[in-house]
Amino acid sequence: MLIREIRDYFGGFFGNVELHGSGDTFISAPAKIEEAQTGQVSFIANEKYLRFLASTTASLVIVGNQVSLDNVAPGTSVIRVGDPYTAFMLLLQKFSRPRHVAEPGIASTARIGRDVRMGNNVSIGEYVVVGDRCVIGDNTVIGHHSVLLRDVSVGSDTVINALISCYEGTVIGSRVIIHSGTVIGADGFGFAPQKDGSYLKIPQMGIVEIGDDTEIGANVTIDRATMGSTVIGKGVKIDNLVQIAHNCRIGDYTVIAAQAGISGSVTLGRFCMIGGQAGFAGHLELADRINVAAKAGISKSFSDQGISLRGYPAQPMREQLRLEALQRSLGSMKDRIGMLESEMAQLKTR
Amino acid sequence: MLIREIRDYFGGFFGNVELHGSGDTFISAPAKIEEAQTGQVSFIANEKYLRFLASTTASLVIVGNQVSLDNVAPGTSVIRVGDPYTAFMLLLQKFSRPRHVAEPGIASTARIGRDVRMGNNVSIGEYVVVGDRCVIGDNTVIGHHSVLLRDVSVGSDTVINALISCYEGTVIGSRVIIHSGTVIGADGFGFAPQKDGSYLKIPQMGIVEIGDDTEIGANVTIDRATMGSTVIGKGVKIDNLVQIAHNCRIGDYTVIAAQAGISGSVTLGRFCMIGGQAGFAGHLELADRINVAAKAGISKSFSDQGISLRGYPAQPMREQLRLEALQRSLGSMKDRIGMLESEMAQLKTR
Amino acid sequence: MLIREIRDYFGGFFGNVELHGSGDTFISAPAKIEEAQTGQVSFIANEKYLRFLASTTASLVIVGNQVSLDNVAPGTSVIRVGDPYTAFMLLLQKFSRPRHVAEPGIASTARIGRDVRMGNNVSIGEYVVVGDRCVIGDNTVIGHHSVLLRDVSVGSDTVINALISCYEGTVIGSRVIIHSGTVIGADGFGFAPQKDGSYLKIPQMGIVEIGDDTEIGANVTIDRATMGSTVIGKGVKIDNLVQIAHNCRIGDYTVIAAQAGISGSVTLGRFCMIGGQAGFAGHLELADRINVAAKAGISKSFSDQGISLRGYPAQPMREQLRLEALQRSLGSMKDRIGMLESEMAQLKTR
Repeated sequence: MLIREIRDYFGGFFGNVELHGSGDTFISAPAKIEEAQTGQVSFIANEKYLRFLASTTASLVIVGNQVSLDNVAPGTSVIRVGDPYTAFMLLLQKFSRPRHVAEPGIASTARIGRDVRMGNNVSIGEYVVVGDRCVIGDNTVIGHHSVLLRDVSVGSDTVINALISCYEGTVIGSRVIIHSGTVIGADGFGFAPQKDGSYLKIPQMGIVEIGDDTEIGANVTIDRATMGSTVIGKGVKIDNLVQIAHNCRIGDYTVIAAQAGISGSVTLGRFCMIGGQAGFAGHLELADRINVAAKAGISKSFSDQGISLRGYPAQPMREQLRLEALQRSLGSMKDRIGMLESEMAQLKTR
Repeated sequence: MLIREIRDYFGGFFGNVELHGSGDTFISAPAKIEEAQTGQVSFIANEKYLRFLASTTASLVIVGNQVSLDNVAPGTSVIRVGDPYTAFMLLLQKFSRPRHVAEPGIASTARIGRDVRMGNNVSIGEYVVVGDRCVIGDNTVIGHHSVLLRDVSVGSDTVINALISCYEGTVIGSRVIIHSGTVIGADGFGFAPQKDGSYLKIPQMGIVEIGDDTEIGANVTIDRATMGSTVIGKGVKIDNLVQIAHNCRIGDYTVIAAQAGISGSVTLGRFCMIGGQAGFAGHLELADRINVAAKAGISKSFSDQGISLRGYPAQPMREQLRLEALQRSLGSMKDRIGMLESEMAQLKTR
Repeated sequence: MLIREIRDYFGGFFGNVELHGSGDTFISAPAKIEEAQTGQVSFIANEKYLRFLASTTASLVIVGNQVSLDNVAPGTSVIRVGDPYTAFMLLLQKFSRPRHVAEPGIASTARIGRDVRMGNNVSIGEYVVVGDRCVIGDNTVIGHHSVLLRDVSVGSDTVINALISCYEGTVIGSRVIIHSGTVIGADGFGFAPQKDGSYLKIPQMGIVEIGDDTEIGANVTIDRATMGSTVIGKGVKIDNLVQIAHNCRIGDYTVIAAQAGISGSVTLGRFCMIGGQAGFAGHLELADRINVAAKAGISKSFSDQGISLRGYPAQPMREQLRLEALQRSLGSMKDRIGMLESEMAQLKTR
């Protein structure tokens, strides 16, 4: 892609795109600003990296509209644009090719059950097991060794990577990406305590439903509902090693960072952001657009949209930060008490 | 199952079972009270759902003995019983059929090692690998792609789901359920620091033993002992993504919620309940019937049976709740110090 | 191995090795001191186990140079040595045989892609998938069902256990051990928020590089870089269920305990020790030899080598322990404020 083609491409997204320097160099790859070489493009969205502008050997750097061009490395062209980060992400999309997961068609080693319905242009990898009555949509790819038990339904343009287990009845939407090692639809953790202290297994008869345009990381676990469905909404993004228990409902476009754990029957609103290693007690509800800090422990429902939660037990950000500031002042509080005590002793003997 | 058959079935468990309304409707499935339709049965064990009794379209609802029948939806029969939750769980057992994991018999694609002993009615799924000298009991099911390395022993009526790895020498009891992605018997995390700062691997020569009637969730890790055995007792229930390190001993009927982590050589008593994301330092011991709150960090042994632990470092519930209450009063303590200081200043100038 | 051969073997490592009792007994296995039988060797490195010396049935016990031999069980020989723990670890190495992972050679069920280069004496297990252009070094073992996608490179003498997924382009060094269920090179968790609240996937175009002599536990996730490499240094040890996000750099000989989570673009120094369930915010840096306590939450960079961090937000050990001591004195602070208030009230009425 020539530099001037990149400028023109950005012109379709941003109002004010300026190219400084040559537009005729061919750009073959993106790279980080500290590593970019001739023929490569990079970007600077964070001030602390601006110092690289004078020394880079990148052929092209994307920067913000306000960035000074007084000190640019010779041979480096610069495009200034309103949002250099998004501009570069758009460019990454251009340079990326679809990840190879399996050869086109159905591998000869795949085991396909009875009454399976396959769309057009499906790729099924080596040793894949597809149970009876599964449905797989157009252009969907199933990676090597993945197992779809009976009655699993997968939409179109979905990528299920290698070594994934989908228990029976799981419903997966279109344009979904699921990474290796993830287990969908295992039994929820439900046991009725008996008088002798042992436990009776509560049958987990529901399923898991995963909405369109979601992405689910590696080694995630999403349990089937006791009855009904555990529901992952549209456009949800779930990072690695996240636990989602039975009967949860995750609202559309909510993002969950790595190692967070959502207990049974929790309902998260839409557009929430859940930090890494955060944990939720069971049966609670969060409104839309709530942010939960990393490691927070949510022990009750919150119905105010758009708030931020932090701490354990988690509370709204302002109260939690006030609590943390008070904790930091504990030493001075103790000193002030000691001072008051000695003043008091003096007064009393006066 | 007819409604009056359900009434009679409950009669075998509860002393006082009353049917109100028709006993002749055929019930085909259980459902949640807010979703139940004609031909379905639901239950209400929590007061806040009692409002559904007037509007449900369920054909049968199970409720407690004390629930008023003044306002029941027309066409809905009601059974009153001492413990409607347990009654409904018993009914779920009736309606559930065994989960399909693999076809009966040994799949032609399975690789079975030498000197393997199989019981009657074993099911071995597609591409399963069973190492030399393994023993598999009657009616046990091994899901697709699971790997049992050499000398693994599995009891009878056990279900090992798809994509599970059991390292050599693992011993698994009868009536056990293990979910996909779980790894049993990987090396414990043991390294001897060397003078140059590098580490010498300590050979992990022991095994893992899993007792009868346990259930182990998805993507769990249970490491083999350095010497001897890592032991999971009878009737233990382990949720998804739990880590159990080498040489741990988990007492019978103890329950461990998702993402908890048990460090090396920890001994947990019987009938304990461990909350989600709780963590344990190594080499400590908990007595029987101890409850550990979610996210707690246990840093020492506790020998008093039946206590509840919370916080990090964890302490008995009452002390921890007192600490948390004191933290919540920090703001007022600071105000009171300020007030004392200004009063003191006034007194001193008096 | 005869007892006197063990003494001679230790003589190559330690200056002062003393044998008490017979040197002619044949030792067949190591065991824990509380379980050791005739023909077995054990050790005592911790004072609280010294009481076993009088009652053990072990044929040989390794103890420290200072341990009294006044009360040793009859028939038990004792070797005294400077560091009995390391001595016993050396002995464990002697008794351990390589774990069986796969038969020598390439299993007939393995699927090997085009232009794959294999070293000498490689073992490839059942149903392994090796993608086009992979390179596998001498003596390396790939366990059953593991998947190496295209362009994966593995050094020599490396053991990749069963059911591991390596995405394309992953580079793994020599003498590495990786345990089952681990996923290397899945997409980093990178999404650009759009104006409508949905997310645009940021292509993850980089790879993962794993240095020589590392060991990686079970069900670990290590994500590929957005651009460039996620780097695991030489001699790094990573426990089960650890998350390492895109673009992290883990310094040589750093140790990470189970369930810790390292967010994107974090750089850890060399010889660090990271406790279990610890978490790191993104884009921060730790100097060499820093210890992080279990469950700590690291929210900023620390540049002082050799410090210990604890708490959330984590701070150097001394400050954190002072904070925790202050919290424990909260009750007495509150009492002292109450006492001052009543004294003040008395003074004011004087």
